[in-house]
Amino acid sequence: MKVDLNCDIGEGFGPWPMGDDEAMLDIVSSANIACGFHAGDPSIMFRTAEIAKSKGVAIGAHPGFNDLHGFGRRVIRGDSPTEIERMIAYQIGAMQAVAALAGHQVTYVKVHGSLNNMANEDESLALAIARAIKGVDASLINVCMPGLLMEKASETVGIPVVREFFADRTYEDDGALTSRRKAGSVLHDADAAAERVLRTLQEKAVITTSGKRIPIEIDTICVHGDEPSAVAMARTVRAKLEANGIIIAPFSGR
Amino acid sequence: MKVDLNCDIGEGFGPWPMGDDEAMLDIVSSANIACGFHAGDPSIMFRTAEIAKSKGVAIGAHPGFNDLHGFGRRVIRGDSPTEIERMIAYQIGAMQAVAALAGHQVTYVKVHGSLNNMANEDESLALAIARAIKGVDASLINVCMPGLLMEKASETVGIPVVREFFADRTYEDDGALTSRRKAGSVLHDADAAAERVLRTLQEKAVITTSGKRIPIEIDTICVHGDEPSAVAMARTVRAKLEANGIIIAPFSGR
Amino acid sequence: MKVDLNCDIGEGFGPWPMGDDEAMLDIVSSANIACGFHAGDPSIMFRTAEIAKSKGVAIGAHPGFNDLHGFGRRVIRGDSPTEIERMIAYQIGAMQAVAALAGHQVTYVKVHGSLNNMANEDESLALAIARAIKGVDASLINVCMPGLLMEKASETVGIPVVREFFADRTYEDDGALTSRRKAGSVLHDADAAAERVLRTLQEKAVITTSGKRIPIEIDTICVHGDEPSAVAMARTVRAKLEANGIIIAPFSGR
Amino acid sequence: MKVDLNCDIGEGFGPWPMGDDEAMLDIVSSANIACGFHAGDPSIMFRTAEIAKSKGVAIGAHPGFNDLHGFGRRVIRGDSPTEIERMIAYQIGAMQAVAALAGHQVTYVKVHGSLNNMANEDESLALAIARAIKGVDASLINVCMPGLLMEKASETVGIPVVREFFADRTYEDDGALTSRRKAGSVLHDADAAAERVLRTLQEKAVITTSGKRIPIEIDTICVHGDEPSAVAMARTVRAKLEANGIIIAPFSGR
Repeated sequence: MKVDLNCDIGEGFGPWPMGDDEAMLDIVSSANIACGFHAGDPSIMFRTAEIAKSKGVAIGAHPGFNDLHGFGRRVIRGDSPTEIERMIAYQIGAMQAVAALAGHQVTYVKVHGSLNNMANEDESLALAIARAIKGVDASLINVCMPGLLMEKASETVGIPVVREFFADRTYEDDGALTSRRKAGSVLHDADAAAERVLRTLQEKAVITTSGKRIPIEIDTICVHGDEPSAVAMARTVRAKLEANGIIIAPFSGR
Repeated sequence: MKVDLNCDIGEGFGPWPMGDDEAMLDIVSSANIACGFHAGDPSIMFRTAEIAKSKGVAIGAHPGFNDLHGFGRRVIRGDSPTEIERMIAYQIGAMQAVAALAGHQVTYVKVHGSLNNMANEDESLALAIARAIKGVDASLINVCMPGLLMEKASETVGIPVVREFFADRTYEDDGALTSRRKAGSVLHDADAAAERVLRTLQEKAVITTSGKRIPIEIDTICVHGDEPSAVAMARTVRAKLEANGIIIAPFSGR
Repeated sequence: MKVDLNCDIGEGFGPWPMGDDEAMLDIVSSANIACGFHAGDPSIMFRTAEIAKSKGVAIGAHPGFNDLHGFGRRVIRGDSPTEIERMIAYQIGAMQAVAALAGHQVTYVKVHGSLNNMANEDESLALAIARAIKGVDASLINVCMPGLLMEKASETVGIPVVREFFADRTYEDDGALTSRRKAGSVLHDADAAAERVLRTLQEKAVITTSGKRIPIEIDTICVHGDEPSAVAMARTVRAKLEANGIIIAPFSGR
Repeated sequence: MKVDLNCDIGEGFGPWPMGDDEAMLDIVSSANIACGFHAGDPSIMFRTAEIAKSKGVAIGAHPGFNDLHGFGRRVIRGDSPTEIERMIAYQIGAMQAVAALAGHQVTYVKVHGSLNNMANEDESLALAIARAIKGVDASLINVCMPGLLMEKASETVGIPVVREFFADRTYEDDGALTSRRKAGSVLHDADAAAERVLRTLQEKAVITTSGKRIPIEIDTICVHGDEPSAVAMARTVRAKLEANGIIIAPFSGR
């Protein structure tokens, strides 16, 4: 059995670093690199791609709202779907070019933060994002939460998808994440998170907070690296999976 | 005989337009599209590429400093050549992706404003820019002023170049433009400019302010479109060349 | 009888102008100057304040979201009210200082675009804005739509208000503007708009689209100047009021 | 004997912190708060002012180039002195307003990074900055390197100055800092730096790298806080001065 571990990365800007990217690139098999709109800049993108290449880590474009101050986490309404489509294409292309310069290659896209959430609630946005990916390179894989609008739009437009599971979040019966405002929605215990990831893979199903079982084959596990405790959890998840005979490898290499 | 006419274009931003892009796309054969750093945004880039495609106009990436407020005209020192290299690659890739979405294709690069000037005075910058172009796509053509550092760096790095002549500027004996501060350095009379362009092409030489003759085969003529009078001059130059049997066509199609 | 005419102004940015500010400063008695977040920059702010001073036009700070590309028209959710409070204070202070340098003085605040709309739908935002104004200078007047949350918050916090009427928009029974999406919600005929403004002042009441009469004493009329037709409408409104014996003068001079 | 300790502070942006501001505000007596152009944002400015107030630390506006990515350290040429003047006024006013909201008051200005260096090499810039300060509030004190152009311009324009000494830098015979590129130009040993500061104050003179003695009464010592070792050095300098009977207090309180 194989699975991918992915992580948002390269989210510093200019003089400001964020997280321990080098440590995370020793843990994950796929790195979602910020493209300069919600974080990142050409030099950070380059260095991240270069290190990922040297460690055999696949890279994806991680585009978001043009909202450096809000880190792409703010809800921004007022751009039309076609504007979003062009903005996503712009960021993917920028990432592809910087990756090429670093001798690496972008194999997938994972949309960042608020825009990703909004696309899972608005089909016109999800379709715009899928069209952007297809328009730039129809072989790029879109990383999606299973069962939500982005996955469906990707299928409608005709681009490949992989299905993602969040290591540190609980799920509702509709397949969405439990709101961060609810107690217990974010797991802080590394062992508990690792155990839950293992079970999800072995059972080929997500167990929701109500106990419901949603059958899904997960392709990639999202871990975080923006805090020391997050790095530790990522390491624990990887160790647990490997100890149970699961190989960690990029989905894009399949 | 054939020659290209090129023009900076797509230099609005968000709610602010600049110049009469539609009119210029009826005159030029190559459009240098701003890439979002000194001007332009993904939607403007898309629309410009789309209109250029419909009119048979070739498109190039027109990257510059990340200096919206200064429109890429300010001298900015402090970035290393490798930082500039990655920044140029970023913009080219962004333009390629948006062009692909619009059904068009970037065939060349022309560096904007202050960064172009600086590269012609600093070999390490010129080489960084040439490496960026090659790293993204070695078939992209670099539009250069003949005889200056950018052309030489392009040859050193191994990317194709075309040679450019400015319709409305006078030249010094070293092949550089006369400083704008000197009286007469900018031509305002459309007929005089058109006449001079014609002569430069027919004589295969640039005549400098001192009367010196620099033998050069010019591939592309730069015209402007940011003011009504500039559009008129561009139209006059085109008409003069065509009246003298010179075909206006993209260099990239040769 | 006296009334003020106000207009958004100074909404260019760097190399990009917007509207005919000089013409508008001959028509209005109060100029709402953009503060660099949704539009404007220190030099534009200075020149606008300087010209306003020379023409006897009062000036106000016109703060908005930090959203240059969206021109402050996008809905941006995710900042807390205290973050909004500090952002508003920042812009008012910047405008005060640049006005001082130009020999003029800020006497009021009018919040721009989307943030203004959001404050009229969210009391915590309206209160944050009122606190920001009071914290910077408790004598600054807040320009409000009558009967909505911003006016109430200003009274709660204890800052002076004036009541505004839009020359080119129709009103609903709750005192809000008719949505732009509805046919007829925006008046394009200058004479009709001028006539309606005159009636609103003379009757001391706003007549809504349903015919309802909301009794209000209007202090200031908002006109636009971003298009030639808008400038013409502003001129017509002023002429109509003056022809009917109404004096145009800044509310802040009362 | 009394002296001030000042430090650049509040230099995070949005999601990115920088340095240990709380620790530094326990060490220094004056805090130079970034104004949102090279670093900082309204919320960071507010919190920094609020903490400074609670600890009895004086605050100054620390304006710089509008260059977030380059952190105000890049040389940017192309703005006229009047543009610089308005940009400085803008930032001072923004800081004053946010400070007022936080219950504190700006008493001085210290220009940041590259713009400060450029002003000490270009009288027209130094005069523009001094005029900006005077235009906003003629009682604001300008923190200057002794003997250089900014100090002279401040005197010409008529604003108060204080003289600054850098705890961790060596000086040349013309009063300028030794270039960072020269070995030994930056002191890394906290005790050596503290000893040197003490001697400079006691001898009322700066000793240059050549051994020359420049007689100067220093008003404020600049320490850094962007790295743990910098915080340690600042603490050592303060302890050494206090151990020798020198009182650390804001210059602005004199």
